[in-house]
Amino acid sequence: MADAQINRQILLVSRPQGEATASNFKLVETPLEPLAEGEVRVRNHYLSLDPYMRGRMDDAKSYAPPQPLNEVMIGGTVGVVSESRNAAFKAGDSVVGMLGWQEYGTSDGKSLNKIDTSRVPISAYLGAVGMPGVTAWYGLNCIIEPKAGETVVVSAASGAVGSVVGQLAKAAGCRVVGIAGGADKCRYVVETLGFDACVDYKAGKLREDLKAAAPKGIDGYFENVGGEVLNAVLARMNAFGRIAVCGMISGYDGNPQPMDAPRFILTQRLKLQGFIVYEHLDVWPQALKELGERIAAGQLHFRESIAEGLESAPEALLGMLHGKNFGKQLVKLI
Amino acid sequence: MADAQINRQILLVSRPQGEATASNFKLVETPLEPLAEGEVRVRNHYLSLDPYMRGRMDDAKSYAPPQPLNEVMIGGTVGVVSESRNAAFKAGDSVVGMLGWQEYGTSDGKSLNKIDTSRVPISAYLGAVGMPGVTAWYGLNCIIEPKAGETVVVSAASGAVGSVVGQLAKAAGCRVVGIAGGADKCRYVVETLGFDACVDYKAGKLREDLKAAAPKGIDGYFENVGGEVLNAVLARMNAFGRIAVCGMISGYDGNPQPMDAPRFILTQRLKLQGFIVYEHLDVWPQALKELGERIAAGQLHFRESIAEGLESAPEALLGMLHGKNFGKQLVKLI
Repeated sequence: MADAQINRQILLVSRPQGEATASNFKLVETPLEPLAEGEVRVRNHYLSLDPYMRGRMDDAKSYAPPQPLNEVMIGGTVGVVSESRNAAFKAGDSVVGMLGWQEYGTSDGKSLNKIDTSRVPISAYLGAVGMPGVTAWYGLNCIIEPKAGETVVVSAASGAVGSVVGQLAKAAGCRVVGIAGGADKCRYVVETLGFDACVDYKAGKLREDLKAAAPKGIDGYFENVGGEVLNAVLARMNAFGRIAVCGMISGYDGNPQPMDAPRFILTQRLKLQGFIVYEHLDVWPQALKELGERIAAGQLHFRESIAEGLESAPEALLGMLHGKNFGKQLVKLI
Repeated sequence: MADAQINRQILLVSRPQGEATASNFKLVETPLEPLAEGEVRVRNHYLSLDPYMRGRMDDAKSYAPPQPLNEVMIGGTVGVVSESRNAAFKAGDSVVGMLGWQEYGTSDGKSLNKIDTSRVPISAYLGAVGMPGVTAWYGLNCIIEPKAGETVVVSAASGAVGSVVGQLAKAAGCRVVGIAGGADKCRYVVETLGFDACVDYKAGKLREDLKAAAPKGIDGYFENVGGEVLNAVLARMNAFGRIAVCGMISGYDGNPQPMDAPRFILTQRLKLQGFIVYEHLDVWPQALKELGERIAAGQLHFRESIAEGLESAPEALLGMLHGKNFGKQLVKLI
């Protein structure tokens, strides 16, 4: 490694004014430094693109500090160890971590986890058996707590989180209704993922379609989008309904969305609870075990949108924020 | 009782179009029927006026069926048994019940409870040791679950519910901030009830005053009013804050109020939970015991606004909906 190998990285160089744009990012080339004792170098294979990233681009009060300017953009990654001076890792190990938007990541090993790619494809560790899968598992099991026969609704139903929520709720014996944007996504949600129904929020009659899809009202709602979808669902909630607030992507891009009728919280005695999956690390082992077993058994389906090459990451992120992805959005580096 | 004694009653005769008005009610005189076997007749001493009544006047989906038209207006009452054909009650017993807006109530006894007026005044069974007191107790202890050192905020702080919430939170070791309308109410909340601070929402700088009163943010919020007060509090909530949604009186009178920024539920990982105290009857005995002991020991202060005479009930209810009461609103019949 004495020859100065080049690492390509994408930095956040400015904060969005309203909508995020590709010009908020910059691709740079940086020589790789030799490893220090205890360090591990990973060749990233896939970058994970996730809605939370939009929040980190702002300098606003939130659950996590903002992404610093002129540093490598944050993000989950899977890859293979290329070199190690850490006894816990050896070259060839597959690992998941948070190495960000770059071809090579260097780590002290503490936040890297070795993964078994013999039964589950490596990219799934960024989706259904990764943070999005555990997010689905936590919100459904620990906040919604579905009971057989109840109706559970999930927005962004074809996405990395929503697709897992719905399949787990279906396995729990619920009537499961997805909300997604467009006929193709809705068809996939019903035909491949096995939901009972899916409402296309772009079809222009969200409230009417939701009523038809959930004729007995809604007992549990997994919220990924906010805005008009939240308003429509709230008006259909049954008494003692539970809403797991995981995301409000419709309001992320400088476009905050009010809740029309908070009175339903009172009149229907609802529980709404926001959560961040990284604050519930105690459930990760159990959730990952169950999710991995379901995938290996062919019981949990997922779909990926794959952008090619590091330089495609900014546009792929912006597209995801507008719902252009179909399934888990990844960037394939190698 | 063979002579036809006259009962005066107030009926709901029409539903409000927007704001409720006195013309929605009508006073009638009705002869009292002789008691049937098992019945109890009660001379009502006080009627309780409570914000939930506004909801019952509408014919809208809510947690309880609407008040039927042309029937005696619903409501909590305390009084004294005047005649009994029920072995569980005898003339002279003091009782609390839901006998509605009338001078005499007739009951099968199932929803009447005998009360001890030797240490606690009879009217308090409609307030601090009645439904409002248990409401405060439940929302604070079962939803907010305050920890010593936390900051708890309560709106309608000088009212029947809010005043108990704050005093119990103070006893739990919290910093307690009230929100009330007007300097007199705020002074009472701090000087008599012992809150640490009180924000006058009518003073025109709610957000600024709230920030000053809760400099470390807000961990628990007991919501009685909704609207702009909710929006201001929401923006100051700390991570993992809990909001007990007991009422949204500002939106009751045909004036629904949006929640500006539901995104805080996510970014601060909040829990919001609506509740109706009648659905948690298991806690009533414990709550009433604790509240009664605190009152008897002089540790729990309360204040009453008393309107005189049955015919004053409609205007007193409308006044309360606009915050004209100062403390628990009652109608004194005798």
